Amino acid sequence: MDAMEFFRRSAGRWQSQRTTHHLAFRRSEAGESEIAVDTLRADAPQVVELCKLHGIDPAGAAGATLVSWQGRMGWDREEENHSGATVMVLVPDDAGGRTGQLLRERGYAEVAPVVGRYFMDDEDGLNLITEYETMSVVERFWFITPDLRLRASTLKRFGGFSTATYCTETRLTDEAEQAADASPIRQPVSLWSW
Amino acid sequence: MDAMEFFRRSAGRWQSQRTTHHLAFRRSEAGESEIAVDTLRADAPQVVELCKLHGIDPAGAAGATLVSWQGRMGWDREEENHSGATVMVLVPDDAGGRTGQLLRERGYAEVAPVVGRYFMDDEDGLNLITEYETMSVVERFWFITPDLRLRASTLKRFGGFSTATYCTETRLTDEAEQAADASPIRQPVSLWSW
Repeated sequence: MDAMEFFRRSAGRWQSQRTTHHLAFRRSEAGESEIAVDTLRADAPQVVELCKLHGIDPAGAAGATLVSWQGRMGWDREEENHSGATVMVLVPDDAGGRTGQLLRERGYAEVAPVVGRYFMDDEDGLNLITEYETMSVVERFWFITPDLRLRASTLKRFGGFSTATYCTETRLTDEAEQAADASPIRQPVSLWSW
Repeated sequence: MDAMEFFRRSAGRWQSQRTTHHLAFRRSEAGESEIAVDTLRADAPQVVELCKLHGIDPAGAAGATLVSWQGRMGWDREEENHSGATVMVLVPDDAGGRTGQLLRERGYAEVAPVVGRYFMDDEDGLNLITEYETMSVVERFWFITPDLRLRASTLKRFGGFSTATYCTETRLTDEAEQAADASPIRQPVSLWSW
């Protein structure tokens, strides 16, 4: 499977449970979000535009994923929305499509556009490595089943690792949503982006 | 790196932060523990004994790891101890030592001895697959640095995935422990085994 195929398999709506472990303080922070994932063709306007922004020839792009999210804060009864969206473009090194450059409109913690690296590992996990000015992020995404995707990332800041973040993502179907709405158990969650 | 080398690099004392995501209820549960990891030679009495218990020739064992843990519950002021220990023996398929049988004295949720499979993936992650009578567990362990190890596991019960568990494990040094003791921030955690 190449990275574009990984994006295609990720298309759809997902319920994401997220936990961040803050290493220095031994604290963990929980959040949840609904994520919508679409794939974009290599010739889509957003893809061409993002390539140009990074000074990269759009002809080299394999396509992209468009991720939008809406986080919820469980302790607030009012409908507070914490939403966002990002595009990630794949520019493969070769025809195999398993390694290459990853162009982002927006990174985890910075609004400026960034270029990272991606590679598919032999377990068909998608790995993303992004170096920012003051920190670096390594992420791995992998499927347990077509409808269950996990994500683990570590953030290194000023030379030391500061957080590890884990997401458990369950594909949303109408059936699953009805069951979730009927569940009486909810917990407080905190704000986060996808 | 073969699996025995992975165990050797895991030797020492670790502070482990753990979160379990319960998929059906979208709940997460936090815990923390101190873990001590030792390696055992193939001819150690515990290794020989565990091989015999499983009806496997001890001559095929590469060695083992002995893991002991002590969990803490942050909301209780009294010193409550939730401790345990387990031995995991590697019986490699071949001289490469990267795949084989994993013998456990004690599994995650059952006290009966179990035989699982292990393999090292191309990113040098250690993967363990254990089938129990009513459930199966897939775990992946990997190092970010020699002193930072992550762990992700999924538990499938009665045909559906029910939990995903993530651990962030930081090697304990005297220096790190002093810093942690001085930290004023602690949070409630729940009981768990390693």
